[in-house]
Amino acid sequence: MQRVAKGDANGSARPYAGSTHMAMSPILSEPRSAHDVWGNLTEVCAGQGLDALAGRLHELRPWLEGDLALVERALGGVGDGDTLAHKSARHLLDGAGKRLRPLCVALASRVGSGFGVSAQRLAVAVELVHAATLLHDDVVDLGDRRRGVLAARVVYGNAASIYGGDWLLCEALCRIQSAEVPDALDRMLTVIKEMVIAESLQLADRRGAGAPDVGRYMCIAQGKTAALFGWAAFAGARAGGLELEGACALESFGHKLGLAFQIVDDVLDVAGDPALTGKSLLADVREGKMTYPLILAAERDPRIAVAIKEVAQAESGPAPALLAGIARALLESGAVEESFEAAMKLSREAVGCLSVLPAGPARSALEAVALATVRRRR
Amino acid sequence: MQRVAKGDANGSARPYAGSTHMAMSPILSEPRSAHDVWGNLTEVCAGQGLDALAGRLHELRPWLEGDLALVERALGGVGDGDTLAHKSARHLLDGAGKRLRPLCVALASRVGSGFGVSAQRLAVAVELVHAATLLHDDVVDLGDRRRGVLAARVVYGNAASIYGGDWLLCEALCRIQSAEVPDALDRMLTVIKEMVIAESLQLADRRGAGAPDVGRYMCIAQGKTAALFGWAAFAGARAGGLELEGACALESFGHKLGLAFQIVDDVLDVAGDPALTGKSLLADVREGKMTYPLILAAERDPRIAVAIKEVAQAESGPAPALLAGIARALLESGAVEESFEAAMKLSREAVGCLSVLPAGPARSALEAVALATVRRRR
Repeated sequence: MQRVAKGDANGSARPYAGSTHMAMSPILSEPRSAHDVWGNLTEVCAGQGLDALAGRLHELRPWLEGDLALVERALGGVGDGDTLAHKSARHLLDGAGKRLRPLCVALASRVGSGFGVSAQRLAVAVELVHAATLLHDDVVDLGDRRRGVLAARVVYGNAASIYGGDWLLCEALCRIQSAEVPDALDRMLTVIKEMVIAESLQLADRRGAGAPDVGRYMCIAQGKTAALFGWAAFAGARAGGLELEGACALESFGHKLGLAFQIVDDVLDVAGDPALTGKSLLADVREGKMTYPLILAAERDPRIAVAIKEVAQAESGPAPALLAGIARALLESGAVEESFEAAMKLSREAVGCLSVLPAGPARSALEAVALATVRRRR
Repeated sequence: MQRVAKGDANGSARPYAGSTHMAMSPILSEPRSAHDVWGNLTEVCAGQGLDALAGRLHELRPWLEGDLALVERALGGVGDGDTLAHKSARHLLDGAGKRLRPLCVALASRVGSGFGVSAQRLAVAVELVHAATLLHDDVVDLGDRRRGVLAARVVYGNAASIYGGDWLLCEALCRIQSAEVPDALDRMLTVIKEMVIAESLQLADRRGAGAPDVGRYMCIAQGKTAALFGWAAFAGARAGGLELEGACALESFGHKLGLAFQIVDDVLDVAGDPALTGKSLLADVREGKMTYPLILAAERDPRIAVAIKEVAQAESGPAPALLAGIARALLESGAVEESFEAAMKLSREAVGCLSVLPAGPARSALEAVALATVRRRR
């Protein structure tokens, strides 16, 4: 049964209300092409009765298709070597990535003078940095699947993924340097450090060091996800010739969008459809990660906090009964709906950040991305 | 018994002639401070009867002590955080590193206008890049010891070392960018990619893909070791204001020095003293690495090539008898002496690269470093 939530483009839809993943059956009966970012966003909205938003995305589509095709073509030429580092990098880039970060670069640049050569390099670079961190994260998490297929580390080994990540990072930084966009490189270096430190904090929590805490969660999500979205929007704006003020507004937009994106990611871990997300349900919980709904639920019910601690301390993976209990408690607690509300609020705040920018198709598209991203199912 | 080889500063000493590690007993009865680079080099020479070279190094010592102290102080301030990434980075930097790469930066800068703030940043950065690669290599190799103590990955876990390496890499690149030395950053990005690709090639060989081959060995050694030495000398020269021609001569010096350094590293794996090198004998061979003496020996004796293949294919580590057989065959083959000769030749070629530079204490010091490095015991 297809679930159609009531709502409009301003964000009152609640697709996860009272949901289990059974209730969230696939809205895309035939999966679209892996990298058809725009089409995926549009269908997500249409599938959820958000017709106004879907229409807006549909109108903007031809306008952006060329930009995204350029990025895809450039990404297709990366990792064209035959060492294990190249192969693991290529394997990840071939997976069904959402390409949301390059999209932010492209749109931000179009708020200014357009998606020129420099902005294109930055758009490719931000996806390469993202890919590099995924390769390393999968080694750390011992993740077996990524983007709906076997993880690179399973195919080529952990070592290949470590070197593949290192190599992609340098490939990305080379592109950023050659783009010669003011502040782009030094800010990216800072962002990567923030990402690594955030992952390290999360790692400590997973080893049972931390208690569920929303403040700490937001700090980690800012580092591991929002910082890179912020960079994408900031650097795209600078490549498009925007002054610092406009670029900083776009950076704030990216930060809010990134936080919303991360919370939705967490919601999909407990209430998503594995056929769409490409990863098994409760994968994050099983790895001991403090997801947003989990933290909210634990704040309401101390028994959940105790169960999370047990998961973190389980040497050979948590018992299925323990996981099932957490999942049930989560869905009953209302934390999933509350998490979705928090993501919606952040996406509206993201839209608010754009108010200082000139109205136009690029700004409209960014608004649509923010509102549609929260409704994504993968 | 202390072994004293005949020879002089021009490089005819053969400390490894007919050696086993038993014959190479410690020449430093009390280990010097971990980072006393200059003192260590001087003692190595004096201990091997290379008094002229030892004297030259001794004379230059006060002149360079200040430079190395600056580097050490700056390195002491890196990784001052409490996440697992910081801790693993700090652990590695605290180990007994030789600091040869920063020394190359300092000396190359002194061929020009001196070891100013920019050159100091580059000197710190090159050590951080080196440290980052060691953290990742130890995860790949499952190395248990590094620089005479437990490897960071054993103390803080593989994940911490992966993130620690990523973080150090960015810390290094930030310093290089802020140094604003022409060509330094883009060349470093290229060097890191070369290092990663070389490690990937070596990885494939260790999985049994490659046959012993000197050409391939030199290609891997150039990428994994020589490229960074070349960068150190090049970037130091540029920081000291040298034009491209002089900087490129120093880069060639660094490449030759790096290759010599790597070959000596390989020799120490089969004929070194574990108490000095800080790692167990035949560790590289056990990991299936094609070391220089191993390749020479395999070219002479096909049975060694067969045994190496067996090591690479041994699922749960090679049998002790297999390793002992390889070690015996290696020492009997004369490959150790021939390897040492190859390293000596490269160090003389390194010295030759300096001929286009103005004579003076900095050039003398670089010559001394090249000749002494080959004689190192750790």
